Amino acid sequence: MTERPAPARKRERYHDDRTALYALLDEVHIGHFALCTERGPVVLPSLVVRDGDRILTHGSTGSAWLRAMTQGAAVSLAVTAVDAVVVARSGFESSLNYRSAVLFGACTVLDGADKAAALHTMTDRIIPGRSTEVRDHRPSELAASLILAMPIEEWTYKARAADAMPTDDAADQALEVWAGIVPLRTMYGEPVPAPGLRPDIPVPASVRSLR
Amino acid sequence: MTERPAPARKRERYHDDRTALYALLDEVHIGHFALCTERGPVVLPSLVVRDGDRILTHGSTGSAWLRAMTQGAAVSLAVTAVDAVVVARSGFESSLNYRSAVLFGACTVLDGADKAAALHTMTDRIIPGRSTEVRDHRPSELAASLILAMPIEEWTYKARAADAMPTDDAADQALEVWAGIVPLRTMYGEPVPAPGLRPDIPVPASVRSLR
Repeated sequence: MTERPAPARKRERYHDDRTALYALLDEVHIGHFALCTERGPVVLPSLVVRDGDRILTHGSTGSAWLRAMTQGAAVSLAVTAVDAVVVARSGFESSLNYRSAVLFGACTVLDGADKAAALHTMTDRIIPGRSTEVRDHRPSELAASLILAMPIEEWTYKARAADAMPTDDAADQALEVWAGIVPLRTMYGEPVPAPGLRPDIPVPASVRSLR
Repeated sequence: MTERPAPARKRERYHDDRTALYALLDEVHIGHFALCTERGPVVLPSLVVRDGDRILTHGSTGSAWLRAMTQGAAVSLAVTAVDAVVVARSGFESSLNYRSAVLFGACTVLDGADKAAALHTMTDRIIPGRSTEVRDHRPSELAASLILAMPIEEWTYKARAADAMPTDDAADQALEVWAGIVPLRTMYGEPVPAPGLRPDIPVPASVRSLR
């Protein structure tokens, strides 16, 4: 679905502006990291958030693969959104409208104040403003957290616009067959309080902002 | 977030039944393939559907990376769904409820009748029953299609249940801070007909089934 762009084979679907890339990264917080191990390729689903011109991710210090990432192993990271099902007049032309970014680079391990701030940033990207509503991290929590940063330097961004219609040829357009798109959206449901939560504690602004 | 399971480090979140794996594969049709190239790891977002005990994917014959996959390169494939945002009383305990499968193996290229049937299967997994509403593939379309199959043999499946609540400790539970989950769902919108579609052509059963 995507290819590291070389000028010779640049196609219309590729975009190299950071604006579109950053909009996707700010919307989709599940990324997939690829890395090469002795046993072959492995893909790691991970929580990812953008922090300026870098991507933050975190994990457990117990993971062998994540340890390889902490040692500067080359990685590729994809973040993808599906915006619509494209229903053409043939199976062949039917597809999906999507946005996808594939990044290349390596991660570094954060420490000290940068790490503590990054943890707040990760929380706030998932639940906007949440870090101001909760207590600060305990030293034991900071010690148990592994936070990695990957600079946003080399990437491809590819998209078929969310409202792009099927491209049936004239012969197919003459058929008595429906064609169009069906939009897809990720929606937040109603917040569900934890069992035992004191009923006088209201849903906070951070959670109410998730719509 | 995931690890190829070894009995010694099997954790509660791992499941090895095919039922949960297949339910996820039947729901999420974007997968991320990792492969190792001379230039390092690369991750390829791809349309994936389950066909019995194999996964089907397709692509353009012009892609160098996809060509490596056609030659039996080792791949890892992840399929991931996010079911809820977990809002804990601390940033540290906040997370996501998710399901994720990571598969390992290699792909083979389909040909002949198997390829033609696989193309229909791919259409029908995205738009149920659509292949019976549209014309058959043209020979030129079959020739332009590259369909790969990956047997479902080695995999890990890991999940935090969609309704699982935050696990704050007693000290945090005593705080005057909201906690709970916010469900996430992928929803289909109203079908949008292609411009110029004859207004007497109704939305077909396949498209109406997308809800």
